[in-house]
Amino acid sequence: MAKKEKQFVEEITPMEVDFARWYTDVITKTDLVDYSPVKGFMVIKPYGYALWEGIQEYADKRFKETGHKNCYFPLLIPESLLKKEEEHVEGFAPEVAWVTHGGSEELGERLCVRPTSETIICSMYAKWLNSYRDLPYLYNQWCSVVRWEKSTRPFLRTSEFLWQEGHTLHETYEEANEETLQMLGIYKELCEELLAIPVVCGRKSDKEKFAGAEATYTIEALMHDGKALQSGTSHFLGQHFTKAFEIQFTDREGGLSYPYHTSWGISTRLIGGLIMVHSDNRGLVLPPRIAPIQVAIVPIASHKGNVMEVVEGIYSDIKAAGIKVELDDRANYSPGWKFNEWEMKGVPVRLEIGPRDIENGQVTIFRRDTLEKTQVPMENLAKTVEDLLEDIQKSLFEKALKMREEKTSVAFDMDGLKKSLSENPGFVKAMWCGDQECELKIKEETGATIRCMPFEQENLSDKCICCGKKAEKMVYLAKAY
Amino acid sequence: MAKKEKQFVEEITPMEVDFARWYTDVITKTDLVDYSPVKGFMVIKPYGYALWEGIQEYADKRFKETGHKNCYFPLLIPESLLKKEEEHVEGFAPEVAWVTHGGSEELGERLCVRPTSETIICSMYAKWLNSYRDLPYLYNQWCSVVRWEKSTRPFLRTSEFLWQEGHTLHETYEEANEETLQMLGIYKELCEELLAIPVVCGRKSDKEKFAGAEATYTIEALMHDGKALQSGTSHFLGQHFTKAFEIQFTDREGGLSYPYHTSWGISTRLIGGLIMVHSDNRGLVLPPRIAPIQVAIVPIASHKGNVMEVVEGIYSDIKAAGIKVELDDRANYSPGWKFNEWEMKGVPVRLEIGPRDIENGQVTIFRRDTLEKTQVPMENLAKTVEDLLEDIQKSLFEKALKMREEKTSVAFDMDGLKKSLSENPGFVKAMWCGDQECELKIKEETGATIRCMPFEQENLSDKCICCGKKAEKMVYLAKAY
Repeated sequence: MAKKEKQFVEEITPMEVDFARWYTDVITKTDLVDYSPVKGFMVIKPYGYALWEGIQEYADKRFKETGHKNCYFPLLIPESLLKKEEEHVEGFAPEVAWVTHGGSEELGERLCVRPTSETIICSMYAKWLNSYRDLPYLYNQWCSVVRWEKSTRPFLRTSEFLWQEGHTLHETYEEANEETLQMLGIYKELCEELLAIPVVCGRKSDKEKFAGAEATYTIEALMHDGKALQSGTSHFLGQHFTKAFEIQFTDREGGLSYPYHTSWGISTRLIGGLIMVHSDNRGLVLPPRIAPIQVAIVPIASHKGNVMEVVEGIYSDIKAAGIKVELDDRANYSPGWKFNEWEMKGVPVRLEIGPRDIENGQVTIFRRDTLEKTQVPMENLAKTVEDLLEDIQKSLFEKALKMREEKTSVAFDMDGLKKSLSENPGFVKAMWCGDQECELKIKEETGATIRCMPFEQENLSDKCICCGKKAEKMVYLAKAY
Repeated sequence: MAKKEKQFVEEITPMEVDFARWYTDVITKTDLVDYSPVKGFMVIKPYGYALWEGIQEYADKRFKETGHKNCYFPLLIPESLLKKEEEHVEGFAPEVAWVTHGGSEELGERLCVRPTSETIICSMYAKWLNSYRDLPYLYNQWCSVVRWEKSTRPFLRTSEFLWQEGHTLHETYEEANEETLQMLGIYKELCEELLAIPVVCGRKSDKEKFAGAEATYTIEALMHDGKALQSGTSHFLGQHFTKAFEIQFTDREGGLSYPYHTSWGISTRLIGGLIMVHSDNRGLVLPPRIAPIQVAIVPIASHKGNVMEVVEGIYSDIKAAGIKVELDDRANYSPGWKFNEWEMKGVPVRLEIGPRDIENGQVTIFRRDTLEKTQVPMENLAKTVEDLLEDIQKSLFEKALKMREEKTSVAFDMDGLKKSLSENPGFVKAMWCGDQECELKIKEETGATIRCMPFEQENLSDKCICCGKKAEKMVYLAKAY
């Protein structure tokens, strides 16, 4: 008995009906990802991995331009090292996977699969660092980390994910602080320039900061459903770890000093954000700069006359212009089936070329983001496509920015906050007194958390949204992934 | 009390005195690698990681050119999956790390940290594959794997290492076989073109093949000390795993068939080979195509006249030619100290430029592989350097090939073999009857193993080197890492 052929168009649940199912349908039916036999662990399929490669390429280039070098530290960390920084172990111990046996032998000390690498890296930095002349240390690694999660969703929260983690040491407080903000700036640009996702930059509250950090900075994006996604973080770690790990250097005065320390990371989570910002009920919508395939060419009535000859010429021209183009010459599938597949997979531009187009010296061009179909002259087609891709990139960003603005409200008291969250889910700007009690109460009563204290402050009022006492900080509140 | 400044030139034990110490000195004192707090696990430092990035870049390009795509499968594999292919579990179970706890909870089933990913990948392929139209599957992943080793040496054998693993499925036996050999060919070219390491290609004996493979093909390189290094393997897995994992597809006749399967990998072990083939008692010698820094420029008396101006101009010209160049303008170090550092780090070409050079319109050029120092005109310097780099690349390969030829003997009986191995350690070509008893006896009596049955066969005699019976196969024997 033969297996069933894969069906197109596969059904995608509309996001208005069930946003969570919509998301799951999109990521699985477009071959980005699949569930693995290990609960909470995902398989990133080639089409999804290509998105990660695009993110890596952009980020790695920016890291290297700013003087960073890649390296690799062990996957497994001894329990005793994890415990050296007190807040850190409290934050991470509950969610690590423990290796207890190597082959048939029980280990003398348990090893955890790295949830993040501050501890193992600091143990090496302590061994390496000698003099202020060796500073700064500007190192990064690309790897996977494991955090044992109870409830998982592909890309957004999984027990294993791919990421990069930068770990730097600096002579002075100021330099380390600058580095922290510089890397946050690169993350912001990555989101906005490459992924067409507008982000809010700001500082996390003490409750929400990284375990062991002095300050955590974040970029926060807003999804279709009004929930926020923390999309990248940069931590100013001060001397917390360098003291705990006794990392010292001979300073300019000949004495011994502890360096200042930063760490920063982005992960495959960004792919979840990419989908939840741009995609629609037909499937993926990919911004051209991150799309693994930017243009799909579908020949119509390819057996007729010189169709394939013309199509192949166009394919070569577009490819030669440095555009990622695919010629879909599969014989077994109809043009309609192919249209559906490329639409679902979010390819920004589709070209249809048949005998009638050739007769008229034109091609039919389909734009995935607006679903517009137009005819354009065959002349200078590569340039037309290039310009269109740039236009799509820009307009996706603008659309996402508009969505965010529409989903951003202001509230002055708890009732206003609740009203905003139910009537127009999204970011709510509000004043906060800085007290953790208010922060907890807001979360308890509304489910929203302080996403960040944005760098761009607005003086909405002088009263805390929760307790009504004096407040100087504006925060972004939202429910979040 | 101030810490000690790092000293140069650090002492490297001469390889003639103690090859193992020489190797350790070279890799640690040139900042390639360091030992970590976890026994058998290494830290790959930026300079060492840059070598891996060079290998990745070359290989990834070749993989993609031949139609392969990258993806990512989970780090942890359930014990039950590992056990599905009988030979495979026997081969790997004794050397895996077991995760038994997630957070504070004991797991229902143990998970192993992947030693290789055939089992988890096959479990997904079984879920995905439908029709012959979906074939071939040409997927690869870059990741780290863990194999619990008792005795380790950085790069050569460590409990964790970085690698790539390709896993492909094909409709026919012939296609899968072709793929296996194609990937071995790419590995050979990587070694020879990029790393300047000549390799012997051939098939492993059944004893030495991959656990679960029908045939394993290998590239074998010869080190300075006459030991062989298995540098990459490509496995024809037949239907062993596809049957064990019930991977089936609808074939052209409408029936159900099992696909044919390959896997292939290279690892950070190649970096160990790179060092043991080219480096010398002064430290690293890096072939230009893999060198993270191809040219170091050291200004002499940089405070004088227009030295820095000229040097910076030269630096820009060379950089503009696409050469990886570093201008060493550190004020705290003397030129002599810098010469030593760049020599030790194996930078292929060093340029020295001082007031006298400028007066004469020339620069002093130092070639790391031959230690020759000459003067060349400043005119067309970028071109001169480019040509020199190509020449160094070529001559390092030729030197390595000559070394291998000198260290390759022929033996016709066990006494001859023992004599060769003690008088001129290296490869020994010999005839073998194909019997595993002889293979075991050779190993027991001499320590040498069958490295491979080379594709290029020579008919040395018709008698087995061990039992004297009829033999049709020529093999390469050697002690190996």
